[in-house]
Amino acid sequence: MEGFDPKIHGLDEDFVLTKLTKMKGCGCKVPRDVLLQLLQTFKTDLVINNDEVDIGLDSCVIPLRHPGLRLVQTTDFFYPLVDDPYIMGRVTCANVLSDLYAMGVSECDNMLMLLGVAVDLNESQRDIIVRLFIQGFKDAADEAETKIRGGQTVRCPWLLLGGVATSVAHETEIIKVDRAVPGDVLVLTKPIGGQVAVNSYEWLKNKNGKIEELNLDESKIRKAFKQVCEQMSRLNRNAAKLLHKYEAHASTDVTGFGLLGHAENLARVQKENVEFVIDKLPIIEYMDEIADRMIENGGEGFRLFEGRSAETSGGLLVALSERSAKAYIDELSSLDHAPAWIIGRVVEKSDDSVARIVGDAIRQSIISPL
Amino acid sequence: MEGFDPKIHGLDEDFVLTKLTKMKGCGCKVPRDVLLQLLQTFKTDLVINNDEVDIGLDSCVIPLRHPGLRLVQTTDFFYPLVDDPYIMGRVTCANVLSDLYAMGVSECDNMLMLLGVAVDLNESQRDIIVRLFIQGFKDAADEAETKIRGGQTVRCPWLLLGGVATSVAHETEIIKVDRAVPGDVLVLTKPIGGQVAVNSYEWLKNKNGKIEELNLDESKIRKAFKQVCEQMSRLNRNAAKLLHKYEAHASTDVTGFGLLGHAENLARVQKENVEFVIDKLPIIEYMDEIADRMIENGGEGFRLFEGRSAETSGGLLVALSERSAKAYIDELSSLDHAPAWIIGRVVEKSDDSVARIVGDAIRQSIISPL
Repeated sequence: MEGFDPKIHGLDEDFVLTKLTKMKGCGCKVPRDVLLQLLQTFKTDLVINNDEVDIGLDSCVIPLRHPGLRLVQTTDFFYPLVDDPYIMGRVTCANVLSDLYAMGVSECDNMLMLLGVAVDLNESQRDIIVRLFIQGFKDAADEAETKIRGGQTVRCPWLLLGGVATSVAHETEIIKVDRAVPGDVLVLTKPIGGQVAVNSYEWLKNKNGKIEELNLDESKIRKAFKQVCEQMSRLNRNAAKLLHKYEAHASTDVTGFGLLGHAENLARVQKENVEFVIDKLPIIEYMDEIADRMIENGGEGFRLFEGRSAETSGGLLVALSERSAKAYIDELSSLDHAPAWIIGRVVEKSDDSVARIVGDAIRQSIISPL
Repeated sequence: MEGFDPKIHGLDEDFVLTKLTKMKGCGCKVPRDVLLQLLQTFKTDLVINNDEVDIGLDSCVIPLRHPGLRLVQTTDFFYPLVDDPYIMGRVTCANVLSDLYAMGVSECDNMLMLLGVAVDLNESQRDIIVRLFIQGFKDAADEAETKIRGGQTVRCPWLLLGGVATSVAHETEIIKVDRAVPGDVLVLTKPIGGQVAVNSYEWLKNKNGKIEELNLDESKIRKAFKQVCEQMSRLNRNAAKLLHKYEAHASTDVTGFGLLGHAENLARVQKENVEFVIDKLPIIEYMDEIADRMIENGGEGFRLFEGRSAETSGGLLVALSERSAKAYIDELSSLDHAPAWIIGRVVEKSDDSVARIVGDAIRQSIISPL
């Protein structure tokens, strides 16, 4: 997966997809507090109850005119964060679908593809890139057993990639994500550190001096980049199906707001007052070292250890009983050929639900399952 | 509606929304032939049959796992084409909904709002503009009796506005749009010339010398601009409901590809070989004169008379029996307080279906119903 070669595809040697944007992947999101403030206009429409889910969670769930049926729907769009348009297509589709999967909805009835074609591209570049992107998007949709039937394509200064996933589901197909109880454990299905992996690989390609400055190991960065491409392309669909089998009490997917950001969002909607306490951080191998060195040099290290580093097409974060968790992890690992971990627990709280990462959280270095 | 005053809303006097993009409204679309070529990857998914509709038409219609139900879905996004963010919100919502309405689907079960917030905006500008935009979008959604529950907001070099409209409809709620027969007439529910109105108003505001060069009447341009804002904000919902009552045989909405472009798209999917012959062009008052003067000066006049001038949130183009057409127009006019016209007829054709505008088409100048 590493080392997209523009020449093989008929592009100039120095063609770089990620130069077509100044923001990467889910890092482009407008901050949550700004968003919520701007969305106050909708406040009367965004009631949290049994039937509808708040805009900060993953998909909207809408009662239909037809008994027992719900419309489950999500949209996402962002910018290229790796240079291979085919991989970007897969990642975009996986990332959009993930919001359905986070609700336990494993059947997507329709995908729309959203595409902004960068105005700086000449026609030949445009055709090559868009074709590869569409192929990747379609392959991921095929794997998800859904079809792309519709979309919109506009010209845009940056290459803009996205989609809309829709399912018309029986209420029984949807996991209630607000039932976490003290005693539950928290499971994470992909390691964090994606933003570090993508950015350190950029430094390497751009030869901007960062690698030398931080004295980093190039081969480890290349390995991490392959790993993050694999995990961003991997669908959370098996993880979604197993939510039902193992009776998950809460779930969300980890994307632009980082592990702790999404844990906080999930905590906030719980019916009981609970605290999500995260005491283990599974991190893509070597990414913790990079973050450490950045922090030693006075940087923020992408706020990785604070759980604020953005993930694109990250894993599911699930609350379920401890016994179920072990079986969930075992079965998921055997289906996806990739590990998952118990990263914390749900404890009682006397007032508003929150999430936190303990100060001495164990860092676990995760080697690519490839 | 004319004359958005930035100062009233706390913006700098010289703040101009449409400067946040280099493309306007539906004019930003990637040309249809390019699009179809790029979408070849999907060809196996885009079968035209009784259940599914081609990507070039307005909404995708997808059979669901639940008997008798169809998922009808559409998405659109584009850039500001008028400077009033509130009006742009209304227009964006109306334009997205229009693709459902073109299929006769009058009940939208959910709207997603898509928003790219221009990176050049400072926080105060951003908050003012986004709030006004959302308010306009929401007011149009209220009028359509639907709700906005979900969406995505990213930073983007240009201000990007869009939405996704979804309906889960009984098959009986959906008009079969491929049943035009010789003898039918063609009805149009909003005049063309929107692109001319929006652009000539820009010339006036920008004082770029075009007004003097073409010797244009400022007050007529201002009047046309009000008219186009009104008609772009007007929902095609009543027009959609009446498709059922008057048993329309075919329908589409007129947007980025212009009147003839959309007539061609509609002709192409008809079951019978037919020709759509357009012999009348209802044009927003004075816009024909502007186009004429541009052509006299060696320009293309937005290709208005060729039916290629882009419309944003344009009217429906409907084929139905002549008797029904008159009743359709009467009832629609009384509901919307705005006229509609028979603009042509459906005739036999021995081979592939096409659409054309006759050389001596009558130009009808349409005065604002306001």
